[in-house]
Amino acid sequence: MGKRVAVVLSGCGYLDGAEIYESVSVLLALDLEGAQVQCFAPDKAQMHVVHHGTQTPVQGETRNVLTEASRLARGQIKAIEEARMEDFDALVFPGGYGVAKNLCDYAVKGSDCTVDPRVDALIKAAHGAKKPICAICIAPVLIAKSLGLAHHPTLTIGSDAGTAADIEKMGGKHVNAPVTEIVVDEQNRVVTTPAYMCGQRIGDVWLGVKKAVEKTLSMA
Amino acid sequence: MGKRVAVVLSGCGYLDGAEIYESVSVLLALDLEGAQVQCFAPDKAQMHVVHHGTQTPVQGETRNVLTEASRLARGQIKAIEEARMEDFDALVFPGGYGVAKNLCDYAVKGSDCTVDPRVDALIKAAHGAKKPICAICIAPVLIAKSLGLAHHPTLTIGSDAGTAADIEKMGGKHVNAPVTEIVVDEQNRVVTTPAYMCGQRIGDVWLGVKKAVEKTLSMA
Repeated sequence: MGKRVAVVLSGCGYLDGAEIYESVSVLLALDLEGAQVQCFAPDKAQMHVVHHGTQTPVQGETRNVLTEASRLARGQIKAIEEARMEDFDALVFPGGYGVAKNLCDYAVKGSDCTVDPRVDALIKAAHGAKKPICAICIAPVLIAKSLGLAHHPTLTIGSDAGTAADIEKMGGKHVNAPVTEIVVDEQNRVVTTPAYMCGQRIGDVWLGVKKAVEKTLSMA
Repeated sequence: MGKRVAVVLSGCGYLDGAEIYESVSVLLALDLEGAQVQCFAPDKAQMHVVHHGTQTPVQGETRNVLTEASRLARGQIKAIEEARMEDFDALVFPGGYGVAKNLCDYAVKGSDCTVDPRVDALIKAAHGAKKPICAICIAPVLIAKSLGLAHHPTLTIGSDAGTAADIEKMGGKHVNAPVTEIVVDEQNRVVTTPAYMCGQRIGDVWLGVKKAVEKTLSMA
């Protein structure tokens, strides 16, 4: 039996939802390792809808996070309140602005952000059960906010100084890393990789995400 | 300099647009081989919008093929009329129902379908210039319709009997193949792989697509 992994998506498209290449890299790396995957997303309205050609918000259009994420999961997805960490060996968060807009409000409030309570509960449940958590791209801000003050996890979001400073304000320890590398907090069982926080090419993002997923599975 | 490759997308989501895992597999395989990629899509309304959770069409909602495909291309995409085969060494079509709904009307009319004239012209330009064409999943129906009667290309869509019969009706020759394999028509310079026409797992789809992309680049 493969390891059982919960993957939390935040929409479909990097400007208002989950980063597609990171999410597919996660799902591909997990499948190549024989893991059993279940995707989850919150059943709520996206913060907004962004036209990915013009990079501008679309006035008057609304989309649902779970509905859009179901595109990325080929329909195999559940509402996040159905996720229970006792059913899984590991928890993975791909990145994308959707993490900072739909899973928490970091995009608006920075280090004063609030994590969606269902996401926060899942992170704390995984950490409490000593099950590994993998957070990609901007997703380490979720881990910093949920676990920072109590457990001071070591994390990377690449080398962006402002985001790194916010990670530290929320109680995390930030370590710089390039796109193809990972940072592992063995004590807190957290694996992070920068992906598109500093990456330019899908091939580099794949290498970093694959390494992060394989390390996470080895700890599960 | 890497090979220059045009990738034609048909939206974002397998039920009404481009199959996301196939499209990302194409882009990843091309990048790992050092290719220079430009994505294109038609700037027109999708045939419809399908809710990927319930698998049912959403009444009253419209989305644009180019706008949705720009999610999958991280905004790096152009309208298909800007594609000129003299600027490229190869042409690639990922699959998804969007191919059969937005790039042609095969989903509605079967072997009596019409290919979008801009897509048809691009296929004929690539074939005429002896530049390789890679068609994934259901995309071989485009090649059968555009080139079938004149050139009888050998193609695979896996082993679905009805679709294989339609390929033959349109003038193609169909060969069965499993998800991890490719079919190569050396004379017409066409490479096909079944992907989700018969695949079940993203890892298998990746292996077939990677093989198809690498073969295509070797012929360019």
